[in-house]
Amino acid sequence: MSGTGEGQGENSGKTVTACVLLIGDEILSGRTKDSNLSYIAQHLNRIGVQVREARVIPDIEEEIVATVNEVRAKYDYVFTTGGIGPTHDDITADSVAKAFGVSIGPDPEAMALLQAHYAETGGEFTSARQRMARLPDGARMIANPLSKAPGFRIGNVFVMAGVPMVMHVMLDSLLGQLEGGASMLSRTLTAAIGEGSIAETLGEIQSRHADVSIGSYPYYRGREFGTSIVMRSVDSAALERAEADVAQMFEKLGVSAVAGEKS
Amino acid sequence: MSGTGEGQGENSGKTVTACVLLIGDEILSGRTKDSNLSYIAQHLNRIGVQVREARVIPDIEEEIVATVNEVRAKYDYVFTTGGIGPTHDDITADSVAKAFGVSIGPDPEAMALLQAHYAETGGEFTSARQRMARLPDGARMIANPLSKAPGFRIGNVFVMAGVPMVMHVMLDSLLGQLEGGASMLSRTLTAAIGEGSIAETLGEIQSRHADVSIGSYPYYRGREFGTSIVMRSVDSAALERAEADVAQMFEKLGVSAVAGEKS
Repeated sequence: MSGTGEGQGENSGKTVTACVLLIGDEILSGRTKDSNLSYIAQHLNRIGVQVREARVIPDIEEEIVATVNEVRAKYDYVFTTGGIGPTHDDITADSVAKAFGVSIGPDPEAMALLQAHYAETGGEFTSARQRMARLPDGARMIANPLSKAPGFRIGNVFVMAGVPMVMHVMLDSLLGQLEGGASMLSRTLTAAIGEGSIAETLGEIQSRHADVSIGSYPYYRGREFGTSIVMRSVDSAALERAEADVAQMFEKLGVSAVAGEKS
Repeated sequence: MSGTGEGQGENSGKTVTACVLLIGDEILSGRTKDSNLSYIAQHLNRIGVQVREARVIPDIEEEIVATVNEVRAKYDYVFTTGGIGPTHDDITADSVAKAFGVSIGPDPEAMALLQAHYAETGGEFTSARQRMARLPDGARMIANPLSKAPGFRIGNVFVMAGVPMVMHVMLDSLLGQLEGGASMLSRTLTAAIGEGSIAETLGEIQSRHADVSIGSYPYYRGREFGTSIVMRSVDSAALERAEADVAQMFEKLGVSAVAGEKS
């Protein structure tokens, strides 16, 4: 139905798109399992912003610059995670500044926040830590109540930390700034039956419900197997009609279907 | 050191690159947390193939075609997961055929395998299931001992299932076909100290060890925090020298460092 953010009633029919950029060698090497993408996607979805693509790229300036410039032109919003700490491999802020063709330097407000934070916690406000108070020209801070070093927004690009706890508080603080579109609603029905037994009927159901995207996801748990059917639409009435057809399909096959989380 | 695959001695100095394409709306909606990327990256790394980029794209033909064509030109290998089942939303095989400009049709060997499998398990070999035996012209099957429906290789693109258990057996069966390069070795040292306290020294260490990529990864566990330093290089002697310098840095700061998994 309509977007849930403030003052977004007029956007209820619009599709608002986003791309997520996960920046970091550690994800590409397999050392770190990313959990940020699904978190961001779920939270954006609730306010009517649909993640259409995600990329994982290394800590290499030219890759970050080229990718940011490609995807910020293609999607309504871009969200990055990673590479904004104090060490030599934290090059996201500089790379994003370069992508926008602007300079980067210490932000007085961010400097004051970090200075106060380290004074309070007894840490030294080293020049490395001062790097975290640098913002591209024209950027606005994204608050970080947890560890203070801010993210930032420039144009339609939101730059956040890679550490999940810190990313979560940053995302919380920026969701109110986004213009959402129509929220994607979903219904799930799961049954202990293989995909191959329902594929044809499901294909026919999909062809009758053009406004609903129907996905089929097989699962295996030891010797058990089955299929989850996920139906997604911005139109709740269309969604209910598709759900009824899928439920009827399972009924005719004599298998019981379990409804999953609605959103 | 040298690649670990058979007959790969002559490639030991070469960098072999890969891109992973995760295909599926369910990952972009946040419904499914991907675990395939880290698995693939770790296994490729062991045979000297470095994942340089990963993308998550939706089940939309034009997106798959464009992305496959972009990345197969850019990297030595491309690995896809997802979208090769029997249902209407499984469009990866057709899209990859289109990307290569070839036709797609039933493969006699794959048909025979699947027919025997369903005869044995008592399932009907429906036309939907027969879709899983279709291969692009010029493709070679990737074996799937688990549920029989094969993946395939065409050119430098390897098309695998999205279900992790099935992807794992497919990856196992194809690793022997890859030409690896120099294996990336790694060392990790973790200490209970903030990034900001080591950033400057670490930056100096990085500048003295150009052959080693040094990453700094902060962590928070409740009230505890610390930093893991990950050093990566194809040169084991260079790696040991960098590790010694990082260990000395922690020693001078009076914090004890714990060595992580070596690879």
